[in-house]
Amino acid sequence: MFESAELGQKLDKATFKKRELELRGALLEAQFGLAERNDFSVVVLIGGVDGAGKGETVNTLNFWMDPRQIETNAMGEPTQEERERPRMWRFWRALPPQGKIGIFFGSWYTAPIVDRVSGKTDDADLETSIDEILRFEAMLASEGTLILKYWMHLSKQQQKRRLNALEKDLETRWRVTDTDGEKFKLYDDFRAVSEIALRRTSVPHAPWIVVGGADPNYRMITTATSLLEGLRTRLDNNPPRPPSITLPKLSGPDDRRVLQTLDLSLRLPRKKYRQELQSLQGRLNLLSRDEKMKERSVVLVFEGADAAGKGGTIRRTVAALDARFYRVIPIAAPTDEERARPYLWRFWRHLPRTGHFTIFDRSWYGRVLVERVEGFAPETDWMRAYGEINDFEAEMHRHGVIIAKFWLHISQEEQFRRFKGREETDHKRYKLTEEDWRNREKWDAYEEAICNLVE
Amino acid sequence: MFESAELGQKLDKATFKKRELELRGALLEAQFGLAERNDFSVVVLIGGVDGAGKGETVNTLNFWMDPRQIETNAMGEPTQEERERPRMWRFWRALPPQGKIGIFFGSWYTAPIVDRVSGKTDDADLETSIDEILRFEAMLASEGTLILKYWMHLSKQQQKRRLNALEKDLETRWRVTDTDGEKFKLYDDFRAVSEIALRRTSVPHAPWIVVGGADPNYRMITTATSLLEGLRTRLDNNPPRPPSITLPKLSGPDDRRVLQTLDLSLRLPRKKYRQELQSLQGRLNLLSRDEKMKERSVVLVFEGADAAGKGGTIRRTVAALDARFYRVIPIAAPTDEERARPYLWRFWRHLPRTGHFTIFDRSWYGRVLVERVEGFAPETDWMRAYGEINDFEAEMHRHGVIIAKFWLHISQEEQFRRFKGREETDHKRYKLTEEDWRNREKWDAYEEAICNLVE
Repeated sequence: MFESAELGQKLDKATFKKRELELRGALLEAQFGLAERNDFSVVVLIGGVDGAGKGETVNTLNFWMDPRQIETNAMGEPTQEERERPRMWRFWRALPPQGKIGIFFGSWYTAPIVDRVSGKTDDADLETSIDEILRFEAMLASEGTLILKYWMHLSKQQQKRRLNALEKDLETRWRVTDTDGEKFKLYDDFRAVSEIALRRTSVPHAPWIVVGGADPNYRMITTATSLLEGLRTRLDNNPPRPPSITLPKLSGPDDRRVLQTLDLSLRLPRKKYRQELQSLQGRLNLLSRDEKMKERSVVLVFEGADAAGKGGTIRRTVAALDARFYRVIPIAAPTDEERARPYLWRFWRHLPRTGHFTIFDRSWYGRVLVERVEGFAPETDWMRAYGEINDFEAEMHRHGVIIAKFWLHISQEEQFRRFKGREETDHKRYKLTEEDWRNREKWDAYEEAICNLVE
Repeated sequence: MFESAELGQKLDKATFKKRELELRGALLEAQFGLAERNDFSVVVLIGGVDGAGKGETVNTLNFWMDPRQIETNAMGEPTQEERERPRMWRFWRALPPQGKIGIFFGSWYTAPIVDRVSGKTDDADLETSIDEILRFEAMLASEGTLILKYWMHLSKQQQKRRLNALEKDLETRWRVTDTDGEKFKLYDDFRAVSEIALRRTSVPHAPWIVVGGADPNYRMITTATSLLEGLRTRLDNNPPRPPSITLPKLSGPDDRRVLQTLDLSLRLPRKKYRQELQSLQGRLNLLSRDEKMKERSVVLVFEGADAAGKGGTIRRTVAALDARFYRVIPIAAPTDEERARPYLWRFWRHLPRTGHFTIFDRSWYGRVLVERVEGFAPETDWMRAYGEINDFEAEMHRHGVIIAKFWLHISQEEQFRRFKGREETDHKRYKLTEEDWRNREKWDAYEEAICNLVE
């Protein structure tokens, strides 16, 4: 994969100047088109070998283009707030909105590659990471993100020459960090591991472009030309939604077993309820103050039909907790900042720090419930959501987040009784809206969607 | 101020139960009104003496009300990301949007009081902090925020009894931290300093309510009743904009000296320009990599007429910088998350970490330029902005942020030439909009607004 980038390609100064002029105009034009359309975002990854000109490339791109429409993210050591969340949180946090370009200097590839080279992980771990990356980038692409990945490459000899030259030059000496020397010693390992990662993750919707970094002119023109082509292709073909694929029918009404076999007549006598509630709240309180909570966080999800008791259950849950350590997130319509990013962004942003609870009143399952039933999301979107949701929860789980999801169910008749009751009781009026009444009409469709979730 | 809260007020259980029932219904109703109106936010501060029931109060409020519409912020030790920004950043960051209640457990009062008690600061510092708080809260109130501040109080004897009781009880022992004992020793100092702070900052738009904390029933009912009253008063009186005060006329057209005395004929020969640019960029680059930058951050502001060259100047500035350490923020229309919070929130959120640059292409000065001239903001709003902007910049300065603000000016004739030129040059087309042409018509009004800024 790297051989062609080691040929020592060069570009003479005159050709460079000519191409630079053309490229700058065309790139600005493309950026303008991107901002004007404002319906997709661009993620540019810059990775590669030390000394191959990653930093210079990013700086020059910012200079040639309109830096106001570019968000450059230097992903160095994670901060404390980042370390307390699942690994991918910092990348989700930095995803650019539609209409903008997000450059990632260091990315989700850095840790998997560096950890494998240093022996902290083994081949199986690397494979797992690569699979996760593949799914993450597929999700980004499905959400309309244009992904372009650049790998600045140098052969071992080229790198040696380059680092020596940088170190000799007083002006550039600062660029050679102590770890650069170390990494040079590991060049062969780094190359081998990177090659595996790149080969496996170079896919049509997120290709790797390996750029020879020995000659700055060649490197810069090659990168900028490719970036321009990527932008133009997307802009000119005005690609619609991802192609509609034929989807398997998930289930018919006969499959609605989970809900229909629920025994909705189960009851707890009031006295017993009070006793058990108090005892359970006491246990929850003790657990929430356990020493181990300093390294864990908790995500609770409440879903269920209207009037099923989500609000009341949440109130009785948080009654056992210290308000300093939880946040209840009611999921309503997304804000415009949320709409400008991939679907799950609005949930990622609320993930708790260690020691904290986030309680979602409705959640990412809305994608495969209300958005599916009401037709807010096209079928291709909610179909892929099942996999994306699994990935999201797996990522939380891997970080040690304790996840519990509750579906609160009532019968259609019970719901009707409660709606009526609410209308009559004054201080519960605040909960009932027209929409609640309207949603009842789609009971069957919801029931099917719910069963697809659980089964 | 505290005497009346030391009388040992009590509430019997029967009265408590009765009031609880009434209050819960009424609080939910008020919360519903707040969410429905969705045009102001509520900031509730909970401070006071250790052991006086601050935590319990917040927990109970969350239980009695709808916790989904409350954001409880526990302001303990600042995180690394917070420490790298001006002191008030973490509070700005946590301000609730309109329609919601933000409870601050620990607030902007904590550090000034604790630092004074520990002797880290002197009386003059405390006074300065108090002045800042007064201006900050006045700003919040002017932005429509309902501010309610509760101080949970205990006399020295009451505190001693309470901490002893907590420590004996295995269930509550965890609540008594090591520092609680220490703080008890400093009770008198803490009380004295708190009294100064509270007395000076209890103003009509942000009153302190001192609550006796010896009896939990009394504490809870008193706090909830006051919160309800505060909410109801605002909801029922539907208070319009803050009263319109008679404003001094800032200046007439004759005062437009700053701009009119500018010598717009100054020119630099191209060769000299290139030389100096390169040399200055080199110096800027060296400075940006100075060891001291690890503890400093930089905020640059570019304002100026359309086509005055803001974009080009920014591009040539960032050309000297490492893209990993700067972010250019173009200021356009606010997002809905920004509109739901005080005006300056959208600028605060972009303040750089140490070692980083934030470059604003247009800025908070829009309030007293475009919003003033176009009538987007009422006069009372843009008039108070002058003071708020000074406070904002003073806060940055105090943290060691290096601030530089540039006004790029051209004549009306030069602007016309450039607009024409842009229309003709293909690759600069992207910059010109209808609005640019329209804005020209208000040249005089803008010139006056600008001079008010600078003079």
